[in-house]
Formats: sequence, structure tokens, C-alpha cells
Amino acid sequence: MIDRLRLVFELNGFINIETRAVEPGSSLLKKGETSKEIYLLSRLQEVGHEDGKAVEERLGLHFDLTVPLSRYVVEHSGELTFPFKRYQIQKVWRGERPQDGRFREFVQADIDVIGNGDLPDHYEVELPLVMVSALEDLRSLGLPKATVHANNRKLSEGFYRGLGLEDVEGVLREIDKLDKIGPDEVSALLIKECGAHVEQAQACLALAEFTASNGAELRRGFDELCAQYGISRDSDAYVLASEGLDTLAMIVDEADRIRPGSVIADLKIARGLDYYTGSVYETFLDGAETLGSICSGGRYDNLASQGSRTYPGVGLSIGLSRLLSYVIHQKGSQASRVSPAAVLVAVWDEQTRSDSNHIADALRKRGIAADVAPTAAKIGKQIKYADHLGIPYVWFPRESEVASQEKDQVKNIITGEQVDADLVSWMPDSVYAKQQVVSKA
Amino acid sequence: MIDRLRLVFELNGFINIETRAVEPGSSLLKKGETSKEIYLLSRLQEVGHEDGKAVEERLGLHFDLTVPLSRYVVEHSGELTFPFKRYQIQKVWRGERPQDGRFREFVQADIDVIGNGDLPDHYEVELPLVMVSALEDLRSLGLPKATVHANNRKLSEGFYRGLGLEDVEGVLREIDKLDKIGPDEVSALLIKECGAHVEQAQACLALAEFTASNGAELRRGFDELCAQYGISRDSDAYVLASEGLDTLAMIVDEADRIRPGSVIADLKIARGLDYYTGSVYETFLDGAETLGSICSGGRYDNLASQGSRTYPGVGLSIGLSRLLSYVIHQKGSQASRVSPAAVLVAVWDEQTRSDSNHIADALRKRGIAADVAPTAAKIGKQIKYADHLGIPYVWFPRESEVASQEKDQVKNIITGEQVDADLVSWMPDSVYAKQQVVSKA
Repeated sequence: MIDRLRLVFELNGFINIETRAVEPGSSLLKKGETSKEIYLLSRLQEVGHEDGKAVEERLGLHFDLTVPLSRYVVEHSGELTFPFKRYQIQKVWRGERPQDGRFREFVQADIDVIGNGDLPDHYEVELPLVMVSALEDLRSLGLPKATVHANNRKLSEGFYRGLGLEDVEGVLREIDKLDKIGPDEVSALLIKECGAHVEQAQACLALAEFTASNGAELRRGFDELCAQYGISRDSDAYVLASEGLDTLAMIVDEADRIRPGSVIADLKIARGLDYYTGSVYETFLDGAETLGSICSGGRYDNLASQGSRTYPGVGLSIGLSRLLSYVIHQKGSQASRVSPAAVLVAVWDEQTRSDSNHIADALRKRGIAADVAPTAAKIGKQIKYADHLGIPYVWFPRESEVASQEKDQVKNIITGEQVDADLVSWMPDSVYAKQQVVSKA
Repeated sequence: MIDRLRLVFELNGFINIETRAVEPGSSLLKKGETSKEIYLLSRLQEVGHEDGKAVEERLGLHFDLTVPLSRYVVEHSGELTFPFKRYQIQKVWRGERPQDGRFREFVQADIDVIGNGDLPDHYEVELPLVMVSALEDLRSLGLPKATVHANNRKLSEGFYRGLGLEDVEGVLREIDKLDKIGPDEVSALLIKECGAHVEQAQACLALAEFTASNGAELRRGFDELCAQYGISRDSDAYVLASEGLDTLAMIVDEADRIRPGSVIADLKIARGLDYYTGSVYETFLDGAETLGSICSGGRYDNLASQGSRTYPGVGLSIGLSRLLSYVIHQKGSQASRVSPAAVLVAVWDEQTRSDSNHIADALRKRGIAADVAPTAAKIGKQIKYADHLGIPYVWFPRESEVASQEKDQVKNIITGEQVDADLVSWMPDSVYAKQQVVSKA
């Protein structure tokens, strides 16, 4: 999966960076609510003196790849060419309680494009489409079709403000819980936590229920909601919402033109706790909606700043470990064999092991992965070793002392077929050449 | 470098495993002397209550890939086919003071073969040769030729015991310092710390100075030293030494036959602090001996045990980050360009951006990495963007409104050549097709 993502990201001109596993506590704690999930480090000698040191001054394992990117961009701003398109595939750690599909150590695959001061909005449609093509490429491993659900913070904020709700962050946080707790509970929370009255809460839910697959439909639906809930087109709130509406309409229309069915406008997407300022994205797999979003992101206007300089960006992140777990446990995908070797070279006796080694080396030079039998055991036992490792071919070196086998032979232990084989020209059947993923789906 | 090592290891039938970054403190502390270099973890909520928890019960970052392998083999012994050949390329962490070529976070690339109860000794020559072929493959990145220096613990132990020295561990520890502090200091330490008298110390140094490139030379030299220092061929000590001598002679002779000049017997190799019980290896680069050993390992009889079962193994480990640092800083090797893209597709104006995107997508489908200009800036500025990223080609979509350019054109901005280009057949010159490593060496 990682190799395939690398290929797609590089074909699209993303530059790979890799950052150290640790960041200062002060950077990790900036993001607020997730701070409790951080793992902090101590050197063994420090054990017992840890209390004296402020958390901000200690080192912790990164819990995402955005905090490290932010540091990287500021540290290297003088050397980078902007817009800076980077991809990063690394492990991250969170001190959560492990549960199905939630790990304390997992791999994220991120793409971001970072501008210096400004950033054109065409990246807001291009980046989700890069992720869609990456996820499309993973379908052969057993992944269902993915659909990006897009929204825009300005659209939501304008609508809420138009309704008279001021606690925009609060409303986004409650709306974000829709999939988990359902509309009735969210409505109750909007009333209790965000000071909404019943009709305002109803309007928020009506907005969240709306989806559209093209710009015209989106604009029509949004304007109907505004009319219904009394948001005037002359209001500042509507002007703000329109900005978001324009970007979102552009995204779904462009995406529909390039890759129909890949992106829809879904006005419940909130990404409650994050730092996004414009577009937000979540991605769901057909038939696996309970898995939640497998690829999320958005536009942020201030990834980092240096004095008066700001670095706006657009980025998305795939939670790779959760996807892999789904592919293995739900779709039954697995490696076609244990060993990467296509051939096990048999050994008649320890005195002729070097002949067997020579054969294996010649195969390797031709790109055919080969192993040599660990001992000169009975041939049945050597074949069993290959079988246990899923190695499809066993190679029998010719025995000069045995008239019956004047040439090397190779046996496909899956089909049982055994043929004379020439070291210079023999090739494994393409089905058996490489270790690969087989999907039961 | 990682991709190349993966390829070599898999061609040789090694199975990849990846283990979590953490192990229990109890496992990490087993190894004794390196324990002070461990990083322990605390969750943020635990901060302030850390003192109450024993180090053994906490989690720490792994400092090598052998401790995790040991746990893995015991946990999965029921599912593994033995001998189990595994490779593992991961980051490890040590709380050392960082200095030139010493990192607190670095990548190790390990191969090991683990037996269940027993393990044939042919692996003791095969594994170092796999590493030699891997290092040979890295020479195109600027690495000098590598030579494996092999010794055997039994040979050293037998010799020291034959001399009347009982503190074998102590002698090995002092001999291990030879390259750092020289023979005079080592001699003084042998006398002071290991209870050696002057002649015994002299004998230890004489053994350490001996090297041989084939078995006959090794046997002759060793027997001369035994005669000179009065070690009888009938003694138990000589019998023990002979076991090691036989294995070491086999290793250098076999290696000499398969890959001449790749392995020498070097009787100063001690690997003082490690858990090896037979063969030990260190690997040095021609002209970079001050770098120290870049690939070390050996045979251990008890990687792990379960009740009465033991798992002997042979393994070697490359310190990849140090090698990479050497290749970059000493040999001036670097990436041929910043961006993986081979082509930047120009954008005449934002209205026709989708035409440019279409061209880029068509190139990507043919495996040619392509980027699209971030803005429809003046063409000179777009070319400058490509130039900053090292992207060799700029693609100009045909302009239907400009009679002068009826076809797409592509310009090599390094050579200045500009030609008509067809989206279906155009290929970048092979020199410019992929981002690669260029070595100044």
C-alpha cells in the first residue's frame, strides 16, 4: 500500500519528506484537545527527575504529520520553492485506548500543498482528486470505491451566523457528532451547549442533511434553506457563506468533470476540532460507512507563521493502518505467500550445496527471488519447507552421478508440473513470479 | 537505499517483518550496558505520577531490531517455518549525545536467520555475503568497496584460556578498544583490569594483529601463535579454539570462492558488549575506516528461549543513517532534482487550466511524473518554478488562438531544446526520466 501511494504521489509531483519521530512538547500541545493523547519521552537517567521539567520543554512522539510539516516549513522556508507540494508517509503515535480500527501506533499518508502568503484555490479540488486516484489504485487490494464528501467552513459559519448563532465553533463541534449520536441528540446539544432555540437547531440539522453532486444543485438547495430560515441575501452572513459556496460549487463541478462520482458536497462535514478555515473533506468507502472517514483534510490559512508571513495550505491525510486492517479483516486480503522467494533450490548433499547456491545466485541476477534448502534433508522434507513458505517452485540441480537426471529440473509444487529447466532462460509463470496481495472480496 | 536493500534481501528469500516502536522496559533492559540509552514513554496524563512505576513495567522505544525479533520469534513460534529468514528495516532510538555519524534516531537494516533448536553453520558464510552484495549494490550511490572482517568467539576464548586468562569477557572488552586507543593502552588495561601479566597481554595483542584471507593461512598463523605462547594442542582450550578456527576457516574459504576479497579473518574483532557465541563480523569501507564498522553481527546461540527450546541465530545489521550521512557529506551524493516530476505543464490562463491538467494526467497514466504550473503567471516565471524544482521539461499546450503554435511543444530547460510533442508517444530522455542519486565521487 505504501509503495502504491508513493508512486501516485510522485507521479503527481509531490516531494517526499521524512521528519524525526519527536517534536517539542510546546509544538505538540498547541493543537489543544488532542494533547492528552501525547506520549512524552524520558531518558532512562532522567527517570525520577522528570517532574521538574515542564511538559513544553520535553520531547514527545508526533501524533500527526501536520505539526512536523509546520515546523519543517518554518525551518526551511528559505530553501523551499512555494507552492511546496509534499507527501509524507510515517508512523504516528497516540495514547488512546486501542480498539477495533484504532491503534496507538499507526501509519498516516499525507499530502499537502503550502503557499507562501497566498495559495490558489484550484489546489482545493486537485488534492482530493489525487487522494481519490490513490484510493482507486488500492481497490485491487480489496478496497471498495471511495467518495470524498466536501464542505466549506465559511458556508457553515455564514449560515449559522445568518441564523443568529454566534458560537460557530460550538455548533461545528456538535454537528461533527451527527454520525455517532444522531440528529435528536445533536439537536439537544445545540440547544443546551450552544444556546440555540429549537428552530435554529432544526435549521442547522437541515443544512447538515443536504448533499449535492453539482454546483447548480448546491446553490439552489442552499438558497432555498436560506429563504426558509430567513437569511437575507444582503446580510454579511450570506456574503461570507457565498464565498464558501462558490469554492465548494467549483470543487464539485471540477471534480465531476474530471472524475464523475468522486466528490460530493455534504454540508454536515464539520471536522469539529481542527484548524481548517475553508474547504473540509472526509472520505467514505462504499459499504464501509461505519469505518468512518478514511481520508480527511481541508484548507487552513495559517499552518504556520513567521512574523508577518503566513503559510496557507490544503492537505489530506489517509489513515493507512485502519485501511489495511479493514482490507485484511473485512475483505480477507492477504499476501499470496509467506516468502518473497519464487524458487527453492534443492540440495542433494552438503558437499554440493555450493552448486545449489550458484543456481540461486544466477536466478537472483535475473531478478528471480530464490532461496536454498536449509539442509540436505530428504527431498520430501525440502518440498515441505517450500510449501510452508508458499514458495511455488522447487529447483532440482542435475545430478551428474544419476543418469536419470541429466538436466536441471524445476517442479511447480502447486500444479505438480515438473520440466527440464535452463538457468539462462527459465522464467516462473507470471502468476507465481512475485509475492502479491490476493483479495477474497 | 532502503528500496535497494529491500530488493536484495527479498531476492535472497528474506521475509520482511515490521514491529511496533515500543517494547516493555523489562525486555529493553536485558541487554545490560546499553540500558542507559533507552527512551521511556509516558502518556501525558501520567506526567507527575511516573515515579511510582518501575522502569521494567513502562514502555520504551526499541534501540535495535534484535530485541523486537526475539519477542517476535517467541510470540509467533507456532506459526513460523524454521529456519526463519527475516529482514527488518526500521528506525531505532538511542538516548546518546548526538555527534558526527551518531544519531539519536536512525535507521537499521537487519537480516537474521533463526533456527528452532539448531541452525546449520552454512548461514554463517551466507549472511555476510548477502550483506556484501547489498553493500556492493549501494556503490553506485557513492559507497566505497566494503570488506567483512570475521572472527570467532570460541577461537578467542580458547586462546585466552590457553594462556591462562580466565576473564574472557573482560579481555574481549579491552581488545574491542584497540582501534580507538591503540595497543599500548589496551595492554595496560589487560594488565590492570583483567589480571594479565606482560607476556599474556603481548600474546592477546599478537592474536589481535593477525589477519588471513584463507583458511590455510589462518590455521598456520594460529598454530604458530599457539606454539609461540605455549598453548598445547592437547589442551581443552585448544579444542575449543579449534571449533572456532574450523568455522572461521570455512567462512573465509567459501567467501573467497564465491566472492573473492569480500571477507577476511581478522582476529581483533571482538564485539565486546554483545551476546554472540560464535562468529562475529564487522564491516569496513575502503578509505573510510575511521567511520568504524558499518555492518556488524554474529552468531548467537540463545536469541530467545521458551522453556527448554532455544532459538539460535545468525544476523547482521547495517547502520543505514550513518552510511547515508557518509554518502552525502563525504562523497557529495545528492538527489538529481528536488521534485520527482519530469515535466511541468504550463498554464496559459486560468480558464484553460483544465487543459493543462488533462495533459498532466495523460502523462501520469504513461508513468511520467508531471506537475502543473501553480499559476498562469508569465511563462518566464513558470519556467523559473520548474528550474527551482529541478524539473527538466516544460510542456506548452497548443494555443488554438495563436497560429504560431498549432501543436503541443515541450522544452528541455537544461539543454534549451524545444520540439513539437505528442501526448501519446513523447518520452523524456532517459537521463531525465526519474529523480535519482548523483554522486560526485
